[in-house]
Amino acid sequence: MTRARSIITLTTDFGSDDSYVAEMKAVLLREAPGASLVDVTHGVRPQDILGGSVVLQRVLRAFSPGTVHLAVVDPGVGTGRRLLIVRILRQTVICPDNGLITWAWRNHAGAKAFDLLWRPERASNTFHGRDVMAPVAGRIAAGKDWKKLCNAIDGPILLDIAPAASPGAARIIHIDRFGNATTNVPAGLLEGRGGLTIRLGRNRIALRRTYGEVAVGTPVALVGSGEFLEIAVRNGSAARRFGLHVGDRIKFVTKSTSHR
Amino acid sequence: MTRARSIITLTTDFGSDDSYVAEMKAVLLREAPGASLVDVTHGVRPQDILGGSVVLQRVLRAFSPGTVHLAVVDPGVGTGRRLLIVRILRQTVICPDNGLITWAWRNHAGAKAFDLLWRPERASNTFHGRDVMAPVAGRIAAGKDWKKLCNAIDGPILLDIAPAASPGAARIIHIDRFGNATTNVPAGLLEGRGGLTIRLGRNRIALRRTYGEVAVGTPVALVGSGEFLEIAVRNGSAARRFGLHVGDRIKFVTKSTSHR
Amino acid sequence: MTRARSIITLTTDFGSDDSYVAEMKAVLLREAPGASLVDVTHGVRPQDILGGSVVLQRVLRAFSPGTVHLAVVDPGVGTGRRLLIVRILRQTVICPDNGLITWAWRNHAGAKAFDLLWRPERASNTFHGRDVMAPVAGRIAAGKDWKKLCNAIDGPILLDIAPAASPGAARIIHIDRFGNATTNVPAGLLEGRGGLTIRLGRNRIALRRTYGEVAVGTPVALVGSGEFLEIAVRNGSAARRFGLHVGDRIKFVTKSTSHR
Repeated sequence: MTRARSIITLTTDFGSDDSYVAEMKAVLLREAPGASLVDVTHGVRPQDILGGSVVLQRVLRAFSPGTVHLAVVDPGVGTGRRLLIVRILRQTVICPDNGLITWAWRNHAGAKAFDLLWRPERASNTFHGRDVMAPVAGRIAAGKDWKKLCNAIDGPILLDIAPAASPGAARIIHIDRFGNATTNVPAGLLEGRGGLTIRLGRNRIALRRTYGEVAVGTPVALVGSGEFLEIAVRNGSAARRFGLHVGDRIKFVTKSTSHR
Repeated sequence: MTRARSIITLTTDFGSDDSYVAEMKAVLLREAPGASLVDVTHGVRPQDILGGSVVLQRVLRAFSPGTVHLAVVDPGVGTGRRLLIVRILRQTVICPDNGLITWAWRNHAGAKAFDLLWRPERASNTFHGRDVMAPVAGRIAAGKDWKKLCNAIDGPILLDIAPAASPGAARIIHIDRFGNATTNVPAGLLEGRGGLTIRLGRNRIALRRTYGEVAVGTPVALVGSGEFLEIAVRNGSAARRFGLHVGDRIKFVTKSTSHR
Repeated sequence: MTRARSIITLTTDFGSDDSYVAEMKAVLLREAPGASLVDVTHGVRPQDILGGSVVLQRVLRAFSPGTVHLAVVDPGVGTGRRLLIVRILRQTVICPDNGLITWAWRNHAGAKAFDLLWRPERASNTFHGRDVMAPVAGRIAAGKDWKKLCNAIDGPILLDIAPAASPGAARIIHIDRFGNATTNVPAGLLEGRGGLTIRLGRNRIALRRTYGEVAVGTPVALVGSGEFLEIAVRNGSAARRFGLHVGDRIKFVTKSTSHR
């Protein structure tokens, strides 16, 4: 059987200045020679599980069935925290059980979680990304059976973050390099709500379809490329303009009601 | 037919902290499984079209015929700006028509530009790098015919930057990590001009062949690895020492004339 | 003969904002089409040979026989400095002879060094990483004979850094993104020294097996994933907490002696 070349993505808080990422890739390429390794980011802020979780969800949306994702933001390394194998969208995530899977788990139905029991004969106490998770990710990418390595569990540890079920639950969950602020408001929640505007302090920001509908330097709210509401400034930084931070609440105003 | 593994390079202003680059790679690997993906940089300053243009030209010089280059610095996404396919040095560039191709276009004769008309059935309004340009780049790398996707045009939008035709047009066009300042003065313009020195404020900097001809900490001008005049400080930063910026004019002094 | 896909790693001080790394990869993929290219880091501080050396040693520990490592921290480019091919752990390193190989050389017995004599017909004076070292690295990765390109030498230039043979020689040699400080004290030197603590100014830091043995925010010393003593703060930054820098001396205190 000819297999398409397998893909393994990497999402960590290791930064880009040390050898840690390359040490994981050495293991991945030993287990799955020829795999395509895709760095998502190693710039998750140290131990920022929420930030890693939001990035990971977008990655799962983007890749095809069969892709393996190694996600290591692991402040609990060397404690008793579990390691997970999660099946989601017919892809596989290997990550610590600390909430990192939250945003993917909440946004995609039918996910299944497994407690990874396998441990190597010899592992460091500080780098399970290399010593435990990478070997497993590589073997899964190489098509080996992984069910014997783990036990099904009811569900993973989840952070207190969820797609907004109503406008009242809207919050900022991510700010990108351009200063665009992604919220937890899924596109579906905005459908049929013509005339919706967002209130940030004294500012009202109208919902548009695209940046091009407003002048350069003008704030705009729109459905972003990840299918959630985003707040942006055309060719500028909404985060800097409005002092936005992850966790901030967002208020909506509709034509008929000037307050909520 | 056995094809050599195709190469796709990526040059963007997306930074390295978000999932955007990986989302484009997901598309590229879907269209061209097994392609070698080479990150040029994702550190172009946000919306710095000139900076991206200078980097892209060097990349085209470096790679072999058949390489596909995806270059996305796209402040006009969501407006009516065109997307381009450019054939240059028997390589292919896919990029927005906003000047990003300028430096490559001006430095390599025989380039041809095409207006990319193809659009997917469903695309976001904010991320055409992923939704429009990446699918096309992947298909071209996979050897598919692309002529039907576009119309030949006379030429792309070009920035007001050009290789200096005379010393009087000399400017700084790029500053690298080491503080070396690249100018728009091609090596050819310097041939036969022995005794040429560069004037920066009160400083005179002599033209040399290599860093090793001056002492550590000494300024030096030389033909850089991109075949343009560079200003450097051996084992130091010329940009910091002389307060250099992109766009600064450079003055030359020759032995016979102390001013020009 | 079917060869496994070759692996070439890259370790440089080029940063991630310019085209330099991609230009080297263009050469590597021309010489070794289909090779897996692994970026170790391009974030070595400009011209920080010691920093590059410490990273490179870890990389050699991690990868398998046959791997080729291209390491370019090269402030002497354009001078008469030699270029090296070093065989170590059945892997091959190509780097300038300026001390970059030191930490790998001192930690792995049986290494052999060769003076790389080959030069291309035409090379820039400022970028031998691309013009001399990358072509050689690519050819070695492609399985070509390289012995004719070089002469065996007694040994490379080495920095004044060595694994500590006694606790009195302990120093910090690396600080990572998390603020963990790696010392030059190999794990073996700590064996059988129960009750050992480290003194940093007025602080005493006990040697533990893993982060999980101390509370969040508490300093801890342990054998790190590179098999050297590390000083860390659980879920915090030891470098910031204690003002640690590369080169700092570390003092040990044992139960029986409160001073040494």
